[in-house]
Amino acid sequence: MNRPTKAATNDVRMRGFARRHTVAAALEWLDAQLQTLDAETVSLSVAAGRVLASTVTSDVDVPGFDRATMDGYAVVAASTDGAGSYSRLSLTVIGDSMPGRPFEGSIQQGEAVRAMTGAPMPRGADAVLPAEFVEVDAEGPGKSGHDIHALAAVSPGKNVGPRGAVVLEPGRRLRPQDVGVLSSIGYGQVSVVRRPRVRLVVTGNELLPAGSRPEGVHIADANGPMLSALIERDGGLVDFPGLVRDDRQSILNGLTADADIVIVSGGSSVGVEDLAPTLVAEHGELAVHGIAMRPSSPTGFGRIGRRLVFLLPGNPVSSLCAYDFFAGRAIRALAGRDKAWPYRQVRATLQRKISSPVGRLDYARVKLVDGLVEPIAVGGASVLSSTTRADGFVIVGDDSEGFAEGAEVDVWLYA
Amino acid sequence: MNRPTKAATNDVRMRGFARRHTVAAALEWLDAQLQTLDAETVSLSVAAGRVLASTVTSDVDVPGFDRATMDGYAVVAASTDGAGSYSRLSLTVIGDSMPGRPFEGSIQQGEAVRAMTGAPMPRGADAVLPAEFVEVDAEGPGKSGHDIHALAAVSPGKNVGPRGAVVLEPGRRLRPQDVGVLSSIGYGQVSVVRRPRVRLVVTGNELLPAGSRPEGVHIADANGPMLSALIERDGGLVDFPGLVRDDRQSILNGLTADADIVIVSGGSSVGVEDLAPTLVAEHGELAVHGIAMRPSSPTGFGRIGRRLVFLLPGNPVSSLCAYDFFAGRAIRALAGRDKAWPYRQVRATLQRKISSPVGRLDYARVKLVDGLVEPIAVGGASVLSSTTRADGFVIVGDDSEGFAEGAEVDVWLYA
Repeated sequence: MNRPTKAATNDVRMRGFARRHTVAAALEWLDAQLQTLDAETVSLSVAAGRVLASTVTSDVDVPGFDRATMDGYAVVAASTDGAGSYSRLSLTVIGDSMPGRPFEGSIQQGEAVRAMTGAPMPRGADAVLPAEFVEVDAEGPGKSGHDIHALAAVSPGKNVGPRGAVVLEPGRRLRPQDVGVLSSIGYGQVSVVRRPRVRLVVTGNELLPAGSRPEGVHIADANGPMLSALIERDGGLVDFPGLVRDDRQSILNGLTADADIVIVSGGSSVGVEDLAPTLVAEHGELAVHGIAMRPSSPTGFGRIGRRLVFLLPGNPVSSLCAYDFFAGRAIRALAGRDKAWPYRQVRATLQRKISSPVGRLDYARVKLVDGLVEPIAVGGASVLSSTTRADGFVIVGDDSEGFAEGAEVDVWLYA
Repeated sequence: MNRPTKAATNDVRMRGFARRHTVAAALEWLDAQLQTLDAETVSLSVAAGRVLASTVTSDVDVPGFDRATMDGYAVVAASTDGAGSYSRLSLTVIGDSMPGRPFEGSIQQGEAVRAMTGAPMPRGADAVLPAEFVEVDAEGPGKSGHDIHALAAVSPGKNVGPRGAVVLEPGRRLRPQDVGVLSSIGYGQVSVVRRPRVRLVVTGNELLPAGSRPEGVHIADANGPMLSALIERDGGLVDFPGLVRDDRQSILNGLTADADIVIVSGGSSVGVEDLAPTLVAEHGELAVHGIAMRPSSPTGFGRIGRRLVFLLPGNPVSSLCAYDFFAGRAIRALAGRDKAWPYRQVRATLQRKISSPVGRLDYARVKLVDGLVEPIAVGGASVLSSTTRADGFVIVGDDSEGFAEGAEVDVWLYA
């Protein structure tokens, strides 16, 4: 193939991709770049869903005392041996233990301390007789100095919560209950992995800002709002200052922004107006450009300085697919999360065959209809609403010619 | 059983629950109360994850024109018939079509218009010949007036994205790509279901604010931070002004706050300091109080005016369990989401039996160890870190005595 003589070595514009990377090779380069970011300290009120940066060990037991786990009467369990509905055993109430207001004395066989859930157990008591297994006298219901009547026996340890200790390991994505545990051991703040700062550079002179009414050949930006939501979902902090003109300086400003990751949407291919790949090659490393997949083959990525840079196709379906395969993976990894897709996977039967040439990975959007997998017509490949009509997607690997009707396939569900 | 003579009809304090509701009966009352909230209009930038309140139909096609889905040359497909590596066919380039800058003329057989991805198709063209199947002359690479050489044939419609139209139905939880689609049809804002406002009333005189170091019988509040994170997860807006003293007026202020839902943590049972159930009965309806489940049996709920009120036990594990069964369900339903748990379910083999009496539903925390389900020691029942050590939980229905070792059980995973 003849090449334009004046073209720079890295300028692939209008020559097509000489060779496409396999998805596996592209991921191999990418994964070698991915390191969890450094830590930051955040308030507990925003810690749920964040990834713990260092080990948490409790130097206090939680709770620091044994305590009642039901409302009733703290007793020496042996005092209730043989008690039943027809063999009531009397116990003398000697005081109360409330949460935060313990009974200060100690307790002997035949005695009881009225105890609320969460109250510290009195010294000597080893069980709580629940309120519903107790009969109280009308004139002084369960008050100190009066008798109560046990209608059931309890064994030692019954309805008593023991003191405990806690360890949480780094890398853990904090659940609501973990946040509760951290609070209970005295943490008001916690050290978590910093969220990656992601600069979003949406290019395309044909684009109007989100919310504009499409007019003729001018279309409203779909990728900016979609990618912003995806970046947020994956734990990134979006920096999207608005649409960027297709000129070298504007794109270069975006590419060299103060960020951990730069995502360029549009102009990623080999067209004359595709400036971003050349700029990345000139100012850093364009490690991957052109990938044997459909859609999203005109995807590129590399580095400029410490920034990871992703060049995503402007076609919204390609943009979504390339984001999910590469950029989203990087954001999740930097944020300390699992690199894997955040989609649920189900196995189901294919209603119509999916064909795909060997040597290319395919991202086939599908619907689930009555539990069967229905591929969405290929005609809609470039239309984003195909991913809205779809319930998810099926991946056909580059070593496969596709799946026959009736085959069992793995479906990744969007929702 | 003798009853204290002066007690009000609704005062169950220190008498135990006369009768516990089944979980099914409690849910039946609850589900009858649950209606999706009204709509509000929000910016597209915060719309992902929200629930669409009304149908969206597009009165514009998106895109409003057929367009190139690859970089290359727009052609009349028939011009390329018979082209191959060894049978190059020449085409004359007559212009360019760029995204937002279409070629204004029309195209005939034997002609080509250089077209970028996303560019409108020129009149007369019905396919795009990708750049990599084209050889260009060195002296004028693909420019207007020069010839290019097709190395492959394309069929009509190839690499052309057709115009499309969109409908999204109410009740749909908006995905990132839906937000992109909405933007592309001119929506800058969208009508979504309002987020339920949830007032969180955390009571307990033994409690210190989150982040305090536990001291003696005083413990730091675990439930406030945990419940806040759960409410956020389920789509609610948390209003948590801080810990509330165990006195009638303070609790009543919380119960009558301006909110869709009030959640009271602590003081929900039948102890002398449990004020909330009586207050709900006095000022509204205490529909359910006492549920045949473990933990969380001292759970109540009802209404005060338009507010749904949930009384959750102070024990953090009970609080989590009662939240998941009842309060979280209500928040999700009001927010327009699926009432079901947001937990992933897996089926796995039980390594040790789980016992539970008939007539009571049990929430058994479990670990998954080498794919086997291991119940967590019951000793930790009241300790929140048991839900931190656990990977999830198994539900034993109230019609079951439990599961034998080796049984296949459904595990709900926390993470």
